[in-house]
Amino acid sequence: MLNVAVIGVGMTKFGRHENKTIRELWVEAAIKAIEDAKISLKDIQAAFIGCFSSEWWEHQGHLGSICADWLSICPTSAVRVENACASSGAALRCGVLAIASGLYDIVLVGGVEKMYSGPRKLSDTAYATEGLALASDEAYEQAQGLTFPGLYALMATAHMHKYGTKKEHLSKIAVKNHKNAAKNPLAHFQKEITLEEAMNARMIAYPLNLYDCCPFSDGASAAILCKADLARRFTDTIIHIIASTQASDTIALHNRESYVSLRSARVAAQEAYKMAKIESKDIDIAEVHDCFTIAELIAYEDLGFCKPGEGGKLIDEGETEIGGRIPVNTDGGLKAKGHPVGATGVAMIYEIVKQLRGEAINQVKAEIGLAHNVGGSGGTCTIHILKRVS
Amino acid sequence: MLNVAVIGVGMTKFGRHENKTIRELWVEAAIKAIEDAKISLKDIQAAFIGCFSSEWWEHQGHLGSICADWLSICPTSAVRVENACASSGAALRCGVLAIASGLYDIVLVGGVEKMYSGPRKLSDTAYATEGLALASDEAYEQAQGLTFPGLYALMATAHMHKYGTKKEHLSKIAVKNHKNAAKNPLAHFQKEITLEEAMNARMIAYPLNLYDCCPFSDGASAAILCKADLARRFTDTIIHIIASTQASDTIALHNRESYVSLRSARVAAQEAYKMAKIESKDIDIAEVHDCFTIAELIAYEDLGFCKPGEGGKLIDEGETEIGGRIPVNTDGGLKAKGHPVGATGVAMIYEIVKQLRGEAINQVKAEIGLAHNVGGSGGTCTIHILKRVS
Repeated sequence: MLNVAVIGVGMTKFGRHENKTIRELWVEAAIKAIEDAKISLKDIQAAFIGCFSSEWWEHQGHLGSICADWLSICPTSAVRVENACASSGAALRCGVLAIASGLYDIVLVGGVEKMYSGPRKLSDTAYATEGLALASDEAYEQAQGLTFPGLYALMATAHMHKYGTKKEHLSKIAVKNHKNAAKNPLAHFQKEITLEEAMNARMIAYPLNLYDCCPFSDGASAAILCKADLARRFTDTIIHIIASTQASDTIALHNRESYVSLRSARVAAQEAYKMAKIESKDIDIAEVHDCFTIAELIAYEDLGFCKPGEGGKLIDEGETEIGGRIPVNTDGGLKAKGHPVGATGVAMIYEIVKQLRGEAINQVKAEIGLAHNVGGSGGTCTIHILKRVS
Repeated sequence: MLNVAVIGVGMTKFGRHENKTIRELWVEAAIKAIEDAKISLKDIQAAFIGCFSSEWWEHQGHLGSICADWLSICPTSAVRVENACASSGAALRCGVLAIASGLYDIVLVGGVEKMYSGPRKLSDTAYATEGLALASDEAYEQAQGLTFPGLYALMATAHMHKYGTKKEHLSKIAVKNHKNAAKNPLAHFQKEITLEEAMNARMIAYPLNLYDCCPFSDGASAAILCKADLARRFTDTIIHIIASTQASDTIALHNRESYVSLRSARVAAQEAYKMAKIESKDIDIAEVHDCFTIAELIAYEDLGFCKPGEGGKLIDEGETEIGGRIPVNTDGGLKAKGHPVGATGVAMIYEIVKQLRGEAINQVKAEIGLAHNVGGSGGTCTIHILKRVS
């Protein structure tokens, strides 16, 4: 029993914010979470902020100080956490530990990334691709020219080879997530696409084409955690974090037993279900880390929403769409909502909380939600399970 | 009562390790700590690793996965923490929270930095200076050409102006720390210097000359934390962490009330003394963050070892030397032991633990020790107080 509740959430629009800095995006999201929780700045006792590489894009480190300073919460402690694309999932887990330790009652967590700025020595795309490569193995992957579309393409071809998964399965995930994002005013892309468009887009790394890849985005997210015993002072809709887990795997793909599943995700999920004393079938809604469409399909299997190899069947049957058995990425996912790397983990919590409160854009009936946040090609995975208890 | 003990410590030699990568340095320190604690890899339940900017020097992020992978502890979770030069102080605090939460019994913490590698577009010194500037304010300090020797020079001239502190006071700190490092086989510089040499070295940023500045170093450090109730299974010399605090301040100097003291250090120290239920006079030995000599002098005052403005008097009277009332930086400090940024905070814990066990190179009589780890120009400060309880 973690004894941790989420009493407020906030996020910026995800997309291109050319005239805002990291610190400005962070403050915008944090203030929204603080207002949502109806607390004041002085109530915050500690902060944990995920960011992948402000060094790369803005020549700025020491984010803890920056984020505390510009939010005007000094001298409150502020820790910056980096676990690649799972940075704010890991920051959230640190916040959970901080409350569970008994030392703090109210903690701010969140994440931020700005991927369109930086020295622009290359085109935006080339510069961002090189920056994202920091999350893979410098010696054994980066040096060989293997970037993230390539890494996930290897997983996709392995899955196709082993299980007969088709390109169409991947494209159906893109269509679903674009449909979910279409009404989401905070999403990077607010437009639907057809299966034909998804199938025939420009190739990036076979079998992944443009619509199989999430965009580079700027954005920030934040959440206010509170000792569960105190949550009723702030809200009538009490949402508890009933599991918070994290696992790691080898940084490089070549050291893994298999490419068709992420060990870090399987282990973190198993531990999370055990901690929450539930099974995968009890999950009503999930946010999963669809940096590429194949990543969402593999997540279905790693999280136990279907058997290994049956991810394609699950999407064919529409079970992860709104109205299906287990709606996934109702906000549009990384694919269409966008993926400001460090902000993604807590942005998932934003959507889960909105759904559990009954305040979501694409509302579904849900009491228990899960967030699956992956770092790199699976070197890190964090899992959080949230439950509405009143 | 945190209920956390330190049962093992390890560190690499600090200095220039041209033929070792970050991951190799980390594994060397971690294995030493594991052997010191007499545990095995499978006993580790979670890890928190501080690193300032592997992105800058080695084009490598996602350090959590790298560090878990190369230490062969996957799928154990591993979080990378970045708080500039206080990165491993902050990682240690996350480890303390993890044990205090009750979710983990044994946790690995540490830090690593490699500052002599990287693309070398500039000289080593220019490249490292630009990299370290990531810890200051990009918009308001870096852009004006203000680097770290300049930031601390502003503090030094302000202290001289307000309190009449002399250059000689700063040089005496350099002489003391070089003397302490002379016998330390893990120190970057194992040589004594004279007061005359210290006074007359090449000027870097007035009044700080070469001997007022710590070197760039490569290195790593690690410690094994354990639920205090279980510590006796592993060791007869039980050392508890009786305080673990962190505070923040504005990233830029220009927003502070004063340059002669660090608010983050004062707040973190006050909270630490309160948490430990002791006063500053109860501290027997301290490791303080002497990235520049003026930083050590200001630390004396911020930690309450003397009154504000009397840091110069304290060094004049020899009270912080070995044999004095409160020996400071018995291992040589950042100044002479070296400062691989991300490794420094836990390297301080290495020395404190060795002293409290009676295993130090420059052994003093001590039961309670304090570690003061500063990020940037004071945007972050962590304080840990350790006590030998048997």
